[in-house]
Amino acid sequence: MKRESRLVRWIWWTVVVTALFLLGFCIGWFAKPSKVTTNNHKTSSKYLAEFLDEMQPDLIRDHLRKFTRLPHLAGTEQNLKYAEEIMKEWQDFGLDSVEMVPYDILLSYPNKSQPNFISIVDHNGKEVFNTSLAEPVPHGYEDVSNIVPPYSAYSPKGHPEGDLVYVNYGRTEDFFQLEREMNISVTGKIVIVRYGKIFRGNKVKNAMSAGAKGVIMFSDPADYWAAGIKPYPDGWNLPGGGAQRGNVLNLNGAGDPLTPGYPAKEYTYRLNPEEGVGLPKIPVHPIGFYDAIHLLKNMGGQIPPNNWKGALNVSYKTGPGFTEDFKSHKVRMNIYSNNQVTRIYNVIGKIRGALEPDRYVILGGHRDAWVFGGIDPMSGAAVVHETVRSAGKLLKKGWRPRRTVIFASWDAEEFGLLGSTEWAEDNARLLQERAVAYINADSGIEGMYTLRVDCTPSLHTLVYDLTKHISSPEEGEEGLSLYESWHKRDNWTNDRDAPRISKLGSGSDFEAYFIRLGITAGRARYTKNKKTERYSSYPVYHSVYETFEIVEKFYDPTFRRLRAVAQVRGGLIFLLADSQVLPLDANEYADSLRKYADSIAHLAQTHTELMKTYKVSFESLFSAVENFTNAARGFHERLQTLNIEDPLQVRIMNDQLMYLERAFIDPLGLPGRPFYRHVIFAPSSHNKYAGESFPGIYDALFDIENSADPEKAWREVKRQISIAAFT
Amino acid sequence: MKRESRLVRWIWWTVVVTALFLLGFCIGWFAKPSKVTTNNHKTSSKYLAEFLDEMQPDLIRDHLRKFTRLPHLAGTEQNLKYAEEIMKEWQDFGLDSVEMVPYDILLSYPNKSQPNFISIVDHNGKEVFNTSLAEPVPHGYEDVSNIVPPYSAYSPKGHPEGDLVYVNYGRTEDFFQLEREMNISVTGKIVIVRYGKIFRGNKVKNAMSAGAKGVIMFSDPADYWAAGIKPYPDGWNLPGGGAQRGNVLNLNGAGDPLTPGYPAKEYTYRLNPEEGVGLPKIPVHPIGFYDAIHLLKNMGGQIPPNNWKGALNVSYKTGPGFTEDFKSHKVRMNIYSNNQVTRIYNVIGKIRGALEPDRYVILGGHRDAWVFGGIDPMSGAAVVHETVRSAGKLLKKGWRPRRTVIFASWDAEEFGLLGSTEWAEDNARLLQERAVAYINADSGIEGMYTLRVDCTPSLHTLVYDLTKHISSPEEGEEGLSLYESWHKRDNWTNDRDAPRISKLGSGSDFEAYFIRLGITAGRARYTKNKKTERYSSYPVYHSVYETFEIVEKFYDPTFRRLRAVAQVRGGLIFLLADSQVLPLDANEYADSLRKYADSIAHLAQTHTELMKTYKVSFESLFSAVENFTNAARGFHERLQTLNIEDPLQVRIMNDQLMYLERAFIDPLGLPGRPFYRHVIFAPSSHNKYAGESFPGIYDALFDIENSADPEKAWREVKRQISIAAFT
Repeated sequence: MKRESRLVRWIWWTVVVTALFLLGFCIGWFAKPSKVTTNNHKTSSKYLAEFLDEMQPDLIRDHLRKFTRLPHLAGTEQNLKYAEEIMKEWQDFGLDSVEMVPYDILLSYPNKSQPNFISIVDHNGKEVFNTSLAEPVPHGYEDVSNIVPPYSAYSPKGHPEGDLVYVNYGRTEDFFQLEREMNISVTGKIVIVRYGKIFRGNKVKNAMSAGAKGVIMFSDPADYWAAGIKPYPDGWNLPGGGAQRGNVLNLNGAGDPLTPGYPAKEYTYRLNPEEGVGLPKIPVHPIGFYDAIHLLKNMGGQIPPNNWKGALNVSYKTGPGFTEDFKSHKVRMNIYSNNQVTRIYNVIGKIRGALEPDRYVILGGHRDAWVFGGIDPMSGAAVVHETVRSAGKLLKKGWRPRRTVIFASWDAEEFGLLGSTEWAEDNARLLQERAVAYINADSGIEGMYTLRVDCTPSLHTLVYDLTKHISSPEEGEEGLSLYESWHKRDNWTNDRDAPRISKLGSGSDFEAYFIRLGITAGRARYTKNKKTERYSSYPVYHSVYETFEIVEKFYDPTFRRLRAVAQVRGGLIFLLADSQVLPLDANEYADSLRKYADSIAHLAQTHTELMKTYKVSFESLFSAVENFTNAARGFHERLQTLNIEDPLQVRIMNDQLMYLERAFIDPLGLPGRPFYRHVIFAPSSHNKYAGESFPGIYDALFDIENSADPEKAWREVKRQISIAAFT
Repeated sequence: MKRESRLVRWIWWTVVVTALFLLGFCIGWFAKPSKVTTNNHKTSSKYLAEFLDEMQPDLIRDHLRKFTRLPHLAGTEQNLKYAEEIMKEWQDFGLDSVEMVPYDILLSYPNKSQPNFISIVDHNGKEVFNTSLAEPVPHGYEDVSNIVPPYSAYSPKGHPEGDLVYVNYGRTEDFFQLEREMNISVTGKIVIVRYGKIFRGNKVKNAMSAGAKGVIMFSDPADYWAAGIKPYPDGWNLPGGGAQRGNVLNLNGAGDPLTPGYPAKEYTYRLNPEEGVGLPKIPVHPIGFYDAIHLLKNMGGQIPPNNWKGALNVSYKTGPGFTEDFKSHKVRMNIYSNNQVTRIYNVIGKIRGALEPDRYVILGGHRDAWVFGGIDPMSGAAVVHETVRSAGKLLKKGWRPRRTVIFASWDAEEFGLLGSTEWAEDNARLLQERAVAYINADSGIEGMYTLRVDCTPSLHTLVYDLTKHISSPEEGEEGLSLYESWHKRDNWTNDRDAPRISKLGSGSDFEAYFIRLGITAGRARYTKNKKTERYSSYPVYHSVYETFEIVEKFYDPTFRRLRAVAQVRGGLIFLLADSQVLPLDANEYADSLRKYADSIAHLAQTHTELMKTYKVSFESLFSAVENFTNAARGFHERLQTLNIEDPLQVRIMNDQLMYLERAFIDPLGLPGRPFYRHVIFAPSSHNKYAGESFPGIYDALFDIENSADPEKAWREVKRQISIAAFT
């Protein structure tokens, strides 16, 4: 018994000891943290909600008010002052670092003592009419100095005099029609075109190619008036004395015209001014339609076709005020503007990533404005400002994104995307190796209807997911998500039941990041109803009437639309910077590629016979798209089985997602456009604003019709198909 | 007492329980493996020793014997057969995958039914002498068919006839001397030059620029005979009937002449043959010196300066056999070679990396040979073969490298580095993003003296470390390391006590990887004593006398030298693929940059006055080097404190090391050479074989002396300094 008892006791002891040991072991095992700090998804999504909620309409209003009081053209003292204020506030908001990054670039200003204008001169050489020297200043801004009058930046000096020829929008097809159908040559003449449809730099290029010796551009109410809306300040239409400023370069992505490919630092070698990239060789000047009416009466008998007449139908030879006298009148341009190398300033703020500081997510938009920049760009800059403030709040609560976030306030966007392009050139290698995505933040609003997103296909899914978590800013839509509000207003045309997302074109600061460097990119803003509002951009675009008040009175009185834009832009940045696995979708890219391939092949169908003759086939392109599609599907399947506890595996998969866009970069660039290197997307050769898919093939096809050597032209088509298929 | 006892017992119990729990806890804590599999350095270095020891001289001999029995020119059936054998053996050795990768590229062959030759024709047009149609075949190979006779690949067809002018080595300076000092024009004449000093393609380019209508090249004993050595087979000098084959392209890194920038796949667009990159426009042909003597007697009275006479002093107007008659004789070239698009095959073998499969370390060398390829390239290919075998052995023992290793057997190197360049073009994006290093494996031996290493500066330290762990292959040096043996034979000239390492030039397959893509690169082989052996490469270079026997009898009878080369090449691959932290040294790069900057600034000192006039300064360059030096030092300090337990941190640092070389790539390329994009290193514009540091600045300075517009030329110097400083 005793023995037994001892045995029992001994067994009991052993059991206890073992149990205790095991208990300790288990607790020890599980208490030890894994080396890998996995993202706590709940925490991250809690922070996302806080981040979006923190953004306040009233503060966006305050930011906009603050930075639109004075004109702040690139290269001026006031724009530096705003840069300094932004730098200081971003520091106060709590960013890890904020710095000012200067470049010395070629800018263009009117001569203060000799204003630009255009005259009508009679047969004695007497000026019988001069265009106005400035726009009437809006109420409340009468005492403001330094309002630059409307001008075409980078126009050379000059005084060309000659007959005036009207060429509609100045598009390639307009010049064709003029020369071929109407049999009018513009050689040695001065051309007048209306704004709209295409980028103004393309109009000037077309006029130069056609042999014109000067270009006048005006805003026709047909293109710049919304129906039933009064001119500013009683409405948001462009007054007759208002005119559109803007650069008339053809840079094709080169950045500063004197330092193509390299950052414009102090020590950087500069081309001679006359060698500068994309500078127009003939004088250019913009006018309002009050002035335009006078000039248009003076076209020496040219009778434009009906569809060219626009709203200024009053004129054109037969209109009131037209006399036969005008036939002998000529037009003289008086342009005194100067190009000069000037210092500009980008503001760059950073939040250092907690786990992957060497991965960059960028939110960038410009600060420089033609005058006050009420819409362009400060409605966007105010949104960025509020995003930075909200991110700072989160930082103070202990949040830190997985990856580094970079905020940029670019300078000199209006002069050809110069600040952003110089910085991209300065940091090209790092960006190429490390940039995950670039989100652009130009004007936050250009209409009062719904959201507009242009982005690369791999962002589609993220945009949809995000906008489902943002509320509609529209009155009467309480409870609706932004996604729903957007969806009901702007669905894809045919094939898809989701809000429409467009291709990226150009004309804003994402260009160097997306089209030169191949960084995933997108932009978002509030827009008009494209179906009913046919004008380009918005009526007061680039005029003195882009004030704080036009936004507050008309575009976004509650500032809830701009808050929604802030939430989209900020939310994209947040999710790209903080998600453990990058929220990019290669399958969407594959779908889009197929659509683009179908569409370019369809375009070529107009030449079926010739394609047979020259043995041109799109087969290799379709087979490449097929391969890409399979690879994308396989990749996302592997992603499902990813061990997210293994930081190296996660990084490896993320690297593939990050480099997805880079895969489309051809280091040799597009023909004649070395800085446009994206084989899938480029600004159209005929309109910088528009995005073209498979631009190399498209341009080669376009040239077929005008080619003296069809064999050579078709060889170029084949070459471009082959390049696209390979890439 | 009892109470006390109970208390004691209770305490004792508690202590035991706690102790047991803690014990369990601690064991549990420490028993749990960290997620991070840290490299076991001891295991890795044990494997390195096994890897190097496994390589056997006798097996290298066997591999060399096996792959040199038959001629295997690129594009021939036999070269495909060897590719298939290599593929099969690599699979048997145990690589994870081996594949054959074909391209269709432009090659050039003599016409089998119409051999190329050169004639001397008298004033009646009668051929009084014809050069030989082939080299005397070495003993033992008499029955071998498909030995291609000496020819200049890519020479156009043609029958130019004219006076013969001798232009020494055909260098830029030789043409200058001829035209300026000797007042002889080569326009419309046939030029004869001796091989050596510079790449033959550069000679042809110079002759074309000078207006010649044909080029003949010969091997002068002064350049191709080692003193006191008999011609093959009694020694390793070139017999008088032997001649050097070789391509005469000026590709500047373009790869296949018809598909510059893109891989030559089936669907790839091809230029028209006459538009091909780098093709010579005038006939070219190589001859031996027996034939050269006859031609040189026929120079119509040209008396070359003494330093031009070489070893063929017998001739030149006054030599034996010269008669006045010859003055009226002309030379006629008869060239019938064809260019044709032909399929070639690279063999690509892979070992998948255990932890970072998306990081590549590449060992590549070519397989195609002009004839047997006893030295070039099979002495190198045998070394690669043995390296693969040894790696396969390790794999079977359970080793697997951290990163992916890629072995390549390139095709068509002799035709302009075509196989390796096409593969680089095909995989450019992946390589740019993922390649850690490229080690080249052309001929393993070109002399019997010591090791020769050419590599990028960041590899210096690794090469020194590695060679200290390899034994000297030299007889009588048992116990000496390869490092010691090398060091005592070839020290840096002045400033450093270590074996000399040179810059990479070109002329082998690393070109696209290093100079176009910016991948860390190096090469190693056994070489001659440069101080006493002045001939270019080695005497029988590119002749039929490059047999297995010449290696076995003369260059490396024990095959221990080739084993040492295998250990260097293989060891580099091993350490680059398996080290946790990449063994690359940014500080060495900084030191080299300073040397190069000093040297280019020194070169410019010959123009001190002009530099003042045109305000050219190297200050920005030196300040950039200074910045790089500080950044490198800072980086290596941070590396000391790296937490190697954190896989993400290790990856981040390694990414920086991997991209170090990439930082020197200028996407716009060097002026006129878009595929040479490395700002620090490029093949000299005057000799493809030689590496030039700061090539952009160098070329701009070189052009100063010949420039009609010195201001423009100096502006180019400034531009190049600015680019280099920025990069």
